Amino acid sequence: MAWKPPPRGLCADLFRALPEVSYARGDAVNDAPRSEQIQFADDMQEFTKFPTKTGRRSLSRSISQSSTDSYSSAASYTDSSDDEVSPREKQQTNSKGSSNFCVKNIKQAEFGRREIEIAEQDMSALISLRKRAQGEKPLAGAKIVGCTHITAQTAVLIETLCALGAQCRWSACNIYSTQNEVAAALAEAGVAVFAWKGESEDDFWWCIDRCVNVDGWQANMILDDGGDLTHWVYKKYPNIFKKIRGIVEESVTGVHRLYQLSKAGKLCVPAMNVNDSVTKQKFDNLYCCRESILDGLKRTTDVMFGGKQVVVCGYGEVGKGCCAALKALGAIVYVTEIDPICALQACMDGFRVVKLSEVIRQVDVVITCTGNKNVVTREHLDRMKNSCIVCNMGHSNTEIDVGRLLNLSCSTVPTFVLSITATTQALALIELYNAPEGRYKQDVYLLPKKMDEYVASLHLPSFDAHLTELTDDQAKYLGLNKNGPFKPNYYRY
Amino acid sequence: MAWKPPPRGLCADLFRALPEVSYARGDAVNDAPRSEQIQFADDMQEFTKFPTKTGRRSLSRSISQSSTDSYSSAASYTDSSDDEVSPREKQQTNSKGSSNFCVKNIKQAEFGRREIEIAEQDMSALISLRKRAQGEKPLAGAKIVGCTHITAQTAVLIETLCALGAQCRWSACNIYSTQNEVAAALAEAGVAVFAWKGESEDDFWWCIDRCVNVDGWQANMILDDGGDLTHWVYKKYPNIFKKIRGIVEESVTGVHRLYQLSKAGKLCVPAMNVNDSVTKQKFDNLYCCRESILDGLKRTTDVMFGGKQVVVCGYGEVGKGCCAALKALGAIVYVTEIDPICALQACMDGFRVVKLSEVIRQVDVVITCTGNKNVVTREHLDRMKNSCIVCNMGHSNTEIDVGRLLNLSCSTVPTFVLSITATTQALALIELYNAPEGRYKQDVYLLPKKMDEYVASLHLPSFDAHLTELTDDQAKYLGLNKNGPFKPNYYRY
Amino acid sequence: MAWKPPPRGLCADLFRALPEVSYARGDAVNDAPRSEQIQFADDMQEFTKFPTKTGRRSLSRSISQSSTDSYSSAASYTDSSDDEVSPREKQQTNSKGSSNFCVKNIKQAEFGRREIEIAEQDMSALISLRKRAQGEKPLAGAKIVGCTHITAQTAVLIETLCALGAQCRWSACNIYSTQNEVAAALAEAGVAVFAWKGESEDDFWWCIDRCVNVDGWQANMILDDGGDLTHWVYKKYPNIFKKIRGIVEESVTGVHRLYQLSKAGKLCVPAMNVNDSVTKQKFDNLYCCRESILDGLKRTTDVMFGGKQVVVCGYGEVGKGCCAALKALGAIVYVTEIDPICALQACMDGFRVVKLSEVIRQVDVVITCTGNKNVVTREHLDRMKNSCIVCNMGHSNTEIDVGRLLNLSCSTVPTFVLSITATTQALALIELYNAPEGRYKQDVYLLPKKMDEYVASLHLPSFDAHLTELTDDQAKYLGLNKNGPFKPNYYRY
Amino acid sequence: MAWKPPPRGLCADLFRALPEVSYARGDAVNDAPRSEQIQFADDMQEFTKFPTKTGRRSLSRSISQSSTDSYSSAASYTDSSDDEVSPREKQQTNSKGSSNFCVKNIKQAEFGRREIEIAEQDMSALISLRKRAQGEKPLAGAKIVGCTHITAQTAVLIETLCALGAQCRWSACNIYSTQNEVAAALAEAGVAVFAWKGESEDDFWWCIDRCVNVDGWQANMILDDGGDLTHWVYKKYPNIFKKIRGIVEESVTGVHRLYQLSKAGKLCVPAMNVNDSVTKQKFDNLYCCRESILDGLKRTTDVMFGGKQVVVCGYGEVGKGCCAALKALGAIVYVTEIDPICALQACMDGFRVVKLSEVIRQVDVVITCTGNKNVVTREHLDRMKNSCIVCNMGHSNTEIDVGRLLNLSCSTVPTFVLSITATTQALALIELYNAPEGRYKQDVYLLPKKMDEYVASLHLPSFDAHLTELTDDQAKYLGLNKNGPFKPNYYRY
Repeated sequence: MAWKPPPRGLCADLFRALPEVSYARGDAVNDAPRSEQIQFADDMQEFTKFPTKTGRRSLSRSISQSSTDSYSSAASYTDSSDDEVSPREKQQTNSKGSSNFCVKNIKQAEFGRREIEIAEQDMSALISLRKRAQGEKPLAGAKIVGCTHITAQTAVLIETLCALGAQCRWSACNIYSTQNEVAAALAEAGVAVFAWKGESEDDFWWCIDRCVNVDGWQANMILDDGGDLTHWVYKKYPNIFKKIRGIVEESVTGVHRLYQLSKAGKLCVPAMNVNDSVTKQKFDNLYCCRESILDGLKRTTDVMFGGKQVVVCGYGEVGKGCCAALKALGAIVYVTEIDPICALQACMDGFRVVKLSEVIRQVDVVITCTGNKNVVTREHLDRMKNSCIVCNMGHSNTEIDVGRLLNLSCSTVPTFVLSITATTQALALIELYNAPEGRYKQDVYLLPKKMDEYVASLHLPSFDAHLTELTDDQAKYLGLNKNGPFKPNYYRY
Repeated sequence: MAWKPPPRGLCADLFRALPEVSYARGDAVNDAPRSEQIQFADDMQEFTKFPTKTGRRSLSRSISQSSTDSYSSAASYTDSSDDEVSPREKQQTNSKGSSNFCVKNIKQAEFGRREIEIAEQDMSALISLRKRAQGEKPLAGAKIVGCTHITAQTAVLIETLCALGAQCRWSACNIYSTQNEVAAALAEAGVAVFAWKGESEDDFWWCIDRCVNVDGWQANMILDDGGDLTHWVYKKYPNIFKKIRGIVEESVTGVHRLYQLSKAGKLCVPAMNVNDSVTKQKFDNLYCCRESILDGLKRTTDVMFGGKQVVVCGYGEVGKGCCAALKALGAIVYVTEIDPICALQACMDGFRVVKLSEVIRQVDVVITCTGNKNVVTREHLDRMKNSCIVCNMGHSNTEIDVGRLLNLSCSTVPTFVLSITATTQALALIELYNAPEGRYKQDVYLLPKKMDEYVASLHLPSFDAHLTELTDDQAKYLGLNKNGPFKPNYYRY
Repeated sequence: MAWKPPPRGLCADLFRALPEVSYARGDAVNDAPRSEQIQFADDMQEFTKFPTKTGRRSLSRSISQSSTDSYSSAASYTDSSDDEVSPREKQQTNSKGSSNFCVKNIKQAEFGRREIEIAEQDMSALISLRKRAQGEKPLAGAKIVGCTHITAQTAVLIETLCALGAQCRWSACNIYSTQNEVAAALAEAGVAVFAWKGESEDDFWWCIDRCVNVDGWQANMILDDGGDLTHWVYKKYPNIFKKIRGIVEESVTGVHRLYQLSKAGKLCVPAMNVNDSVTKQKFDNLYCCRESILDGLKRTTDVMFGGKQVVVCGYGEVGKGCCAALKALGAIVYVTEIDPICALQACMDGFRVVKLSEVIRQVDVVITCTGNKNVVTREHLDRMKNSCIVCNMGHSNTEIDVGRLLNLSCSTVPTFVLSITATTQALALIELYNAPEGRYKQDVYLLPKKMDEYVASLHLPSFDAHLTELTDDQAKYLGLNKNGPFKPNYYRY
Repeated sequence: MAWKPPPRGLCADLFRALPEVSYARGDAVNDAPRSEQIQFADDMQEFTKFPTKTGRRSLSRSISQSSTDSYSSAASYTDSSDDEVSPREKQQTNSKGSSNFCVKNIKQAEFGRREIEIAEQDMSALISLRKRAQGEKPLAGAKIVGCTHITAQTAVLIETLCALGAQCRWSACNIYSTQNEVAAALAEAGVAVFAWKGESEDDFWWCIDRCVNVDGWQANMILDDGGDLTHWVYKKYPNIFKKIRGIVEESVTGVHRLYQLSKAGKLCVPAMNVNDSVTKQKFDNLYCCRESILDGLKRTTDVMFGGKQVVVCGYGEVGKGCCAALKALGAIVYVTEIDPICALQACMDGFRVVKLSEVIRQVDVVITCTGNKNVVTREHLDRMKNSCIVCNMGHSNTEIDVGRLLNLSCSTVPTFVLSITATTQALALIELYNAPEGRYKQDVYLLPKKMDEYVASLHLPSFDAHLTELTDDQAKYLGLNKNGPFKPNYYRY
């Protein structure tokens, strides 16, 4: 059918469904994947207190927005009228008789399957990967324990891993973000999934533990998003690391922790930082924000962009995306920067580089994407004109200095962007699992450029893009392998 | 406060709240103001059957989207739990003891006032007009009967007319679009308003009649949106036209009828076509659609624009806006055209001009904005690739040849655009009301260019735009009046 | 001083190489075709003095830039070493023995033919017109006397007219712009051409007279560029008008004179204003200037556009083109305007609208395209920063208040743009020549929209653009003829 | 002669009209600075033959285009009428009586000074550096031997080095590119310069030798462009390296050689690769080519960009710049790529990614910027449509497979871009000269990011850009030094 079902009144549900603290959640929506600053001094303190502030911490991490733009909200309505029995106390079996899972309601499986199928349409790279690698089963023997958002898109990843030969056990990295019907569909399909929307903190760790601590099954790979799973294994089952071939970590926070472990000499297996691969970064930041800044502002404020004066704080990838989109739609855009190279780029791209105080009185919209804190201060807020819109595209709730401001960026992340991430994760797992002894030490690695290129190549068919191949002669002339990698590591795309 | 309240789950409510025929409503959303084709042969037949198909007709006319993006939905929820007594049977009085109105619930007035105040923020042109013209009361003595959507934005217009000296009686031009709380606020403020959300057809005409047929009060001006009020007066109270100084009509359909009346020699008062003024046209079509195509597609489908192949049928103002926005966001855009001048413009703007059949197999999105019918045919639909998005930005439901397709353009119209329209209407009323005998005959006129320029000038302060004034010497050199008009009538902006 | 001494090269050489009067020529380069449609009060005085100031006047008219960017410069070198005998005193015959012409050197014909052939490549619309209309010879019997720039592009036009059945006699509308080798090629091909580069004023009128005043041949059509030919016929041979079916005039100045004649009741034949046809206007102004502003600035100053602050005075078609190009290349652009509608357009397109004095201190480039005078005043010049570039894209030398400033826009006009103009002229001639009695009165007409559309359609194949055709059903629905015209006359493209 | 191509149409003509050697020169124009960072296997062979093919090699290296668009052309005219005595045989002294130089004609010094002063206007970063560092004289004691193009821009660099305390001896890195009057001005100012336009190969090495082999003066720093100077010292005076603190090399070729020396363990001093600093790369490739592709095509072919179909081979920085500019001017742009990441970027930026053979029949312009060879083959050329323009923006003359094609990119490099390069070189010299023992080993280094940022910061005032400074608190939060560097080394700008 030509028409695709609308994703429902997104923001509204988000607001209505959540308690006051959800503002922090709102903030966090594009925290991890979009922020660019790697070193967060404050986080270190938080890390040392770990896990005592778990509840707060899990709230301040990334939540896959996709959880909010699907049929699950409809499902949630059902849920609310559902019985209030905890899933942990329920006895459920799937149609094959297995009860090796714990989800809200196994009966939602069919509905969840529908959602997974829709997601598959925009994740053809993973489907393609299934086909290309299915014969050789590169993950045969892999026992992967995972802890991520449980969404339709993640389900496509998990089922791809299974198709490539892996066994998987999975929990949620966030107590709110699970799409219950997707979890049900995974359980029905035989995946050992332990997750539901609205877990308590105790539930959260119980689910992780149920994935790790199993009789007769020991994980040899970890896929983590945020570092909680990794942390749990470190604290409770350090021996498991003897069998672990590697950790694949996606989030800024989790990667940060791994680097800290590595510095402290405590990292005992190879880890792959998939957050910083080129393809993923470009999509999470530049391409995604170029669209979501418009979408988020429009959905929440209905502002007309034409002729509006906007100041964008920070001209990294996120800022570049925001500026390009707003300029194209007729806004007059100013930029603030601390880095002279980025400032010069802003100049060459046609933006006046100013200090925030120079334009704060005149602008209609302020957008922060610095990864820094206190970028918009009380003083700035006092000097803004009435009805000026303030929008945080950057890091958690620190950028704007006025208690917990709502992050207005209530946009969605297209499945295609999540496809990039999921494919990157799958390839990282395959690489780590199959790497010959000694290729990776007990350190944190970036995804090899060749695999980064492969992620990109898997997504080109979506655009009907036809790659040119080097002739033998040309490859020799350039001193390159015909199959890549095509660029030196320091290349700036 | 920096943050503006989110407009709630717009599309979803739209879909859920309405019966099957709401698809037609969805279709109609951007019908009148956005379509550019003036002559609709089919409409003529409909006109002759008038008013027997009223219900359907009122559905196929423009509905102000603003009715859907405000507090009124919250209000609607209250409504649904409200008593089901018809407003016609209720006895209500406002705080001054007047009962010269008929609305859903006068108690919602305070809430409605809040909405009107928010709308005023983006309609500073009208506020400015109040201030500039209030001293001289250019509408003193004017008795205006109006029939438009009853929304916060219209309320700002009505109250501006009152501030300029007019007496107003008002009904709704659409049975669904009234914001009840706004109607209540108007009633509380002393405006004789007869409108509520969910009128029956009988209610619809009853309300109009209550505005026109009043003892001791006779209208001398008509402000119409769609022509129903004008029609009613023609049919029922033709004598009223003796006192009428003029009709101001906004909609394509209404203007079309006026031209037909004029051609038939039946138009007995001057009428002003405000639909085709330059400023209004640019905002309704080019500027508004440049933003709403992105917004509408994103809200309904979450499609990522980057790299998508899109064909836009029609390169008029709407098409130009769609193409510019999509190109800027990284889509690859093709154009179809029947008019070689517009086709050449598309070429010069960087778009390949093709026949639809040439690209139908490869595109991800099809957008129609032709004002024509059967642009996308069954045959095209059959050849599209799976999950291709089809989107009608043009005229009602005729552009796409597959029964009643949903118009995906579920975007909102920024208040600023409505401000352009409302200001244009106010100035048209002032002009017609104050025009010296003989300036206007019994014909349909475009807004004088000088007033068109004035509408624009009233909106420049919103952008902090500083107009340059001609010196006496320069004005003489150019043969222009220093205050305009600055361009010949045939000038193409 | 306003003018920045060119940082080497180009302008400097230009200045040195040319006599003082060349400044006026430089000025005039984009005068007529690019200035907006405005009435110039000053010109009227000049008109009354006509033709006493011929020398100056002919300099202040449009000169085809193509004369400056072709082989003719090479030719000029030859010329300078050429004998200094006036062509009027030479006895020359072409290879067929005819001496019905007067050119610099008939021996350059082969070289000129080569230039014409190159021009033909980019003027496929005229070639196509030759093919389509050759069978029916729509100009059979037409005796056209023409006075235009004599360039390769004009030659393609003249030879097209001949191919369609016309007999032509031609002189130059400018004493400097003739490409001698092209004139030679025309003479060799049998066209009665009287023109050379560097005519004296006496030569100028002698050449015109030789075209008009011929035994046994009387013109029935006039093609004029600037009005000198028309003027000459009015003054010297008014009886000729009895046979003239119409005048086709291209220049702003010439059209202005025709309107004055019409107002004064002295226009005794139909005239067609081809200057204001839609297609021509768009190409002369918007599309051409969008490219030439970059080209002209680059060639003369080598300025880097990225990050430069630029103020563009005037946001008509020329201003829109300049602004779009500079914005796209990374400049920060401000706009000044007197017309609020255009000012609002500038806002919506993302440009701050300011008064010149607000930004004059900070900008790197000032571009005038107003058609007005004294736009940049002495006071502005005094406040500019050192090395600010001042560039006149507008009307003659009045825009900048410092004597005769050089128009820096030393760009070229692509042949494709000239093809638009030439095709428009050809169609105007065909229309006027073949119009049935009574279709045109003794007045000035715009080219019928249908022919305007036809000019556009003839140029679409250059872009491989495929026009969509209306079905019978669609045409009926829209109330349109399937072959156009497709838009009402007031349509703003 | 500083050759400027005649405008007008066709490449073919252009090719035929020029002498053979100009092809190579034309080719070389934007060779080094614009080509992507890629290892050229072929060059290695050439390197081994070094210096036997000097003549050819010096032609295939970068030549500062500024030499071609300046007063020097006027000067050349004088030169040509100048005596033909070799400068080596002349006895010249400057006004202070020194004859420690060898230039064409010391009397041109005043003219050259004028050129230097004009260049200084656009190189305010170097002037600023003079001011900031003049007090501390960071190059006091430095004895720099340099071999670069001798142009006005280089002169500003050399005089900056002197102002910072250095003594300099300088020769030309190219036998054609010297601006004689600039060399004279340097000689007059006391710089020991040995260079003139039109050196023989013997002259070339003689000049270098005169810089290196001096009684009582021994260089301790090398600034090289192309590696010839470095090579000469290696071959002839290896002992000099004992005193050399470092080599600063700008060109792709020279850097390549240094990496080869390093690999071979033969590099005996630290070397700094300034070619690959971020700021320089962005300006040489992205920003510069974004403008020069338009300029070059326009100057040489007068092509109108609007509506043209263009294929750009390669989507690195150069390709990105070309594509962005052409798209903005209304061209329809296709991209070919071998690297899937760059291909995906092209998709997201709105370009169809195709194989060259898919579009070769339909495109109007082919632009190569791959750094590869045989990108456009004989077969492609045979299938192009008539008058298709082929333009090499990439590497020497290998990209197009038809003998030595002219690189049509006959644009200029703005002085501002050269200012970036020169400032980078100056800072590299300062860094290497002042680095504490042990900071740099015998290897090739990239410019430290902090200095890269400093180059950028020195150029911000040209744009009136105001950098934001971190507060202490923010710096601590981010774990950054307030003065930078602000980004990790792997950051992709």
